[in-house]
Amino acid sequence: MARPVIALLTDFGTRDHYAGAMRGVALGICPEATLVDITHDVAPQDVLGGALELAAAFKYFPAGTVFLVVVDPGVGSARHGIAADAGGYKFVAPDNGVLTCVFKEAPPRRVVELTERRYARPTVSRTFEGRDRFAPAAAWLAKGVDLTALGRPLTTWQMLDVREPVVGDDRVMGEVLRVDRFGNLVTNIDRRTFERFAGQAAIEIAAAGHPVATLVATYAEAEAGTVCALFGSGDQLEIAVPGGSAAERLQLARGARVTISRRT
Amino acid sequence: MARPVIALLTDFGTRDHYAGAMRGVALGICPEATLVDITHDVAPQDVLGGALELAAAFKYFPAGTVFLVVVDPGVGSARHGIAADAGGYKFVAPDNGVLTCVFKEAPPRRVVELTERRYARPTVSRTFEGRDRFAPAAAWLAKGVDLTALGRPLTTWQMLDVREPVVGDDRVMGEVLRVDRFGNLVTNIDRRTFERFAGQAAIEIAAAGHPVATLVATYAEAEAGTVCALFGSGDQLEIAVPGGSAAERLQLARGARVTISRRT
Amino acid sequence: MARPVIALLTDFGTRDHYAGAMRGVALGICPEATLVDITHDVAPQDVLGGALELAAAFKYFPAGTVFLVVVDPGVGSARHGIAADAGGYKFVAPDNGVLTCVFKEAPPRRVVELTERRYARPTVSRTFEGRDRFAPAAAWLAKGVDLTALGRPLTTWQMLDVREPVVGDDRVMGEVLRVDRFGNLVTNIDRRTFERFAGQAAIEIAAAGHPVATLVATYAEAEAGTVCALFGSGDQLEIAVPGGSAAERLQLARGARVTISRRT
Repeated sequence: MARPVIALLTDFGTRDHYAGAMRGVALGICPEATLVDITHDVAPQDVLGGALELAAAFKYFPAGTVFLVVVDPGVGSARHGIAADAGGYKFVAPDNGVLTCVFKEAPPRRVVELTERRYARPTVSRTFEGRDRFAPAAAWLAKGVDLTALGRPLTTWQMLDVREPVVGDDRVMGEVLRVDRFGNLVTNIDRRTFERFAGQAAIEIAAAGHPVATLVATYAEAEAGTVCALFGSGDQLEIAVPGGSAAERLQLARGARVTISRRT
Repeated sequence: MARPVIALLTDFGTRDHYAGAMRGVALGICPEATLVDITHDVAPQDVLGGALELAAAFKYFPAGTVFLVVVDPGVGSARHGIAADAGGYKFVAPDNGVLTCVFKEAPPRRVVELTERRYARPTVSRTFEGRDRFAPAAAWLAKGVDLTALGRPLTTWQMLDVREPVVGDDRVMGEVLRVDRFGNLVTNIDRRTFERFAGQAAIEIAAAGHPVATLVATYAEAEAGTVCALFGSGDQLEIAVPGGSAAERLQLARGARVTISRRT
Repeated sequence: MARPVIALLTDFGTRDHYAGAMRGVALGICPEATLVDITHDVAPQDVLGGALELAAAFKYFPAGTVFLVVVDPGVGSARHGIAADAGGYKFVAPDNGVLTCVFKEAPPRRVVELTERRYARPTVSRTFEGRDRFAPAAAWLAKGVDLTALGRPLTTWQMLDVREPVVGDDRVMGEVLRVDRFGNLVTNIDRRTFERFAGQAAIEIAAAGHPVATLVATYAEAEAGTVCALFGSGDQLEIAVPGGSAAERLQLARGARVTISRRT
């Protein structure tokens, strides 16, 4: 039988022992698990950032993977901890919207609140539920415990208001959602929205007013150092500078306006 | 039988191949091991920093875990390499005090010097004993070799002088030991010391002279942006700014004085 | 039977989900694999940097390890993807020279172009071949698929022009290739070249004109804070400042000239 996979995504960084302590707890419960990292470098307490990275990654994991997701500014408060079954995967996270983008793509079949004490550590720190509540829950799921055993069913949960592009008659107004390591500005405009709008017409793209020279199929098609647009690995429109950083060149970050208009 | 766990903690960073080379060596000797990282981002050559992160993490790992700990400013010198058996775990490290905080919590049952050449790589680099001596020793322990086979028994080893809080009649003087990714200032004042001092009295907390507004049970209880105190995940008093960074706000780092006094 | 090992080296960083998505894809194909990281923090698109880190690490992994190497400024272009069999290991990478330093040490027995579609994901993104082409190829190799099944044999491939030291009658002129986390400046002058030149003579070392005070066997032999030279873990001459950073002290980076001359 294949070994269960637990995939971790947090904002704990890699400098402290926090992710390590979670790994230790998970292995204590489910020693046969394969633990893999998506990232621990979500910006501190950036729930939307975590939601976007998770949504971009989860579908590349094998069916049955348990995602242990901890970006948790409300740790220790009354916000729930939840476990969910969606898209053939399982998710354990605080109920703060960090699963929003996953749930939009893969509506959850079941969501439960993590109320069952025996699937948490005996003492649950009010500042580190990742270690004491979420990691154990994920490990028990990986071990085969049924989702419904973890707690009472929920019918509502938090969803973030993730901005969708606004499609008008003569332009699409979108915005930058993620800036990646290479300085690529990944927008909320997906390929389908773009193509439906553009049709056969020539279009112009602007990022916060800066004209974008060309739309290419891959970085290597644009001249090094020029600002170009292309559809990235998640089929979202992104603004890039091949061999450089669009974020630095244009001094833009999340929220920057990106518009597409028909050339006149 | 459960697969053996080797947990790594170093100051090698993640930019170079150094941690990777250690992982390769360990897997060559013990291919069935699960390798997990605690952190590789201890500040370069910060033995105390490594000691504190290790102590905060080790007890969350399954019994029998082998900890491979390399923060080693004295690499290649006459300082010993050691292996120890403590608290139901095994540790491999340079003998420079990096196990101090573990040994205070879990006094070692046995400590040996890594003298047995056949449990090291055939050639031991004088600048990278992590790869050539410590990783092999940890992997052989994971494989089931007895600690005493690794070398001659030791009865003394290096211990760091980790500052304890000073409890006076009218105040407790502690200090900041760790600053974490979130900018939390983790002190050496544990909950028990605090409660014994405070009793039922109202108290005041100051960090390097800055008054700390409130003592809360978790971050979410304090107003965002205010300086508060709370007991963190290791039950040490920490100074925090919910939604921000106490380290940046107060411009404090390790060694900063934190005092608790009775309100007059 | 030992579990197959897939070792990852990329310039994807750890902030985004990119390395995570590759891990997910690999585990979906070869769930029994042990995934280990060499590094993901090669400077963005620094093919030479990736080549050097890989060469420094690969020989410490168990025979049969599959290396998944993605530093790929030409992603989506006409450059080939390749798989190679060299030194008892397997390598999957873009054909851009990132395997140069491995191939110098371990000339490849076979190299193939990754043309066989069934060993890639059904849709291959033109901006993320790491996920869609290289990770699947590595996982299939780990699963036991023969290298030759992955595509057509190649007889030529890209090699970088990695500078060798120039040995003259009265001096050796080398240069800095890598700067590590500790600020050590690792040069292209290996121990053998050095010893052949120096013989029994007293020598002088200079880094970009700065005299280097001493040649030592390990960091701990030099006075803290002084600039010294020594042979590092890969037997290359490096310039170091024990307890400090030679890169910061001397303000040097890759390409800086290092000369050895006989003392007159």
